[in-house]
Amino acid sequence: MGRQSDARDRLLDAACRLIHSRGYSAIGVAEICAEAGVRKGSFYHFFASKQALTLEVIDAHWSAQRASWSAVLGGGDPVHDRLERLFRTQAEAQRAAKQDTGAVNGCLLANLALELSNQDETVRARLAQVFDEQVELVRTAIGGSRETARAMVAQLEGMVLFAKLGNDPALLDGVWEQARRLLSA
Amino acid sequence: MGRQSDARDRLLDAACRLIHSRGYSAIGVAEICAEAGVRKGSFYHFFASKQALTLEVIDAHWSAQRASWSAVLGGGDPVHDRLERLFRTQAEAQRAAKQDTGAVNGCLLANLALELSNQDETVRARLAQVFDEQVELVRTAIGGSRETARAMVAQLEGMVLFAKLGNDPALLDGVWEQARRLLSA
Repeated sequence: MGRQSDARDRLLDAACRLIHSRGYSAIGVAEICAEAGVRKGSFYHFFASKQALTLEVIDAHWSAQRASWSAVLGGGDPVHDRLERLFRTQAEAQRAAKQDTGAVNGCLLANLALELSNQDETVRARLAQVFDEQVELVRTAIGGSRETARAMVAQLEGMVLFAKLGNDPALLDGVWEQARRLLSA
Repeated sequence: MGRQSDARDRLLDAACRLIHSRGYSAIGVAEICAEAGVRKGSFYHFFASKQALTLEVIDAHWSAQRASWSAVLGGGDPVHDRLERLFRTQAEAQRAAKQDTGAVNGCLLANLALELSNQDETVRARLAQVFDEQVELVRTAIGGSRETARAMVAQLEGMVLFAKLGNDPALLDGVWEQARRLLSA
């Protein structure tokens, strides 16, 4: 059981890394198994399909990110300080990705949203739920409208796109100042 | 020659449609040829590779979009009216896509940027040049900084992501108001 559970975790970790860096369509089950060091025959013992694994990748990624967002936004200091920390944390994550892998890989959830939303209803619905939760976390912090909170998350995702396109995490240095403008109107 | 040139145009049109709706990795040369009604053996007579065709797709798409952006932004009316028209035009494009295909397909250029920027240096460089031109068109109109112009384009792309994720073009109805806040600060 220990070994089986370990193989499942390794498949999930490998899929997280591969899908984050190269997307869904470009990655096959064989490559995930090779990266995980798991025999291909074992894959379907743990996951019904690449889609099923991808849903677990989304859940695992968002579970960790939600804990981070909740901790950052739930502090007792002024709301602008907490929001600034949230946006700076996202910039730091892209900087760390570039140091680790040589490339700004962007946001796993936004990458999948643009790749699959119009093709896979199950993945789209899961991602929509995750982004709803993101927007709700920001809305609760600002005490404002969902529209304003969504606009702030959109600014973050748009600037992450520019950082990925330029392979330059420094493009995210101004993102809190931009999001603050959306908030203050 | 007429027939050959026609086959080339049909391959380009088919690739535009397929890549816009499903991305780069999910589409193969065989499917592009089938969609275009061109024998697969002819493909490499016109294009060296799927990458080469994709660069032409980007150029063709941006060439049409640049003409539209330039016309909208170059009018003689007040700059805020011109900018508002630009952002409303983008919302209308997503609304039209949904009417035509049933799905909000998002921005072809942003879709490719998130899918390929960290994997294909040639495509990344071409897309970076296109987005530089977009930002410069907006910067010229607002007479402001590149940072502000980039933030406005980022807001548009971030909200297009939400529209695609929700398959709901109405999510773009507020995007000009959001971009205006970025401008007015």
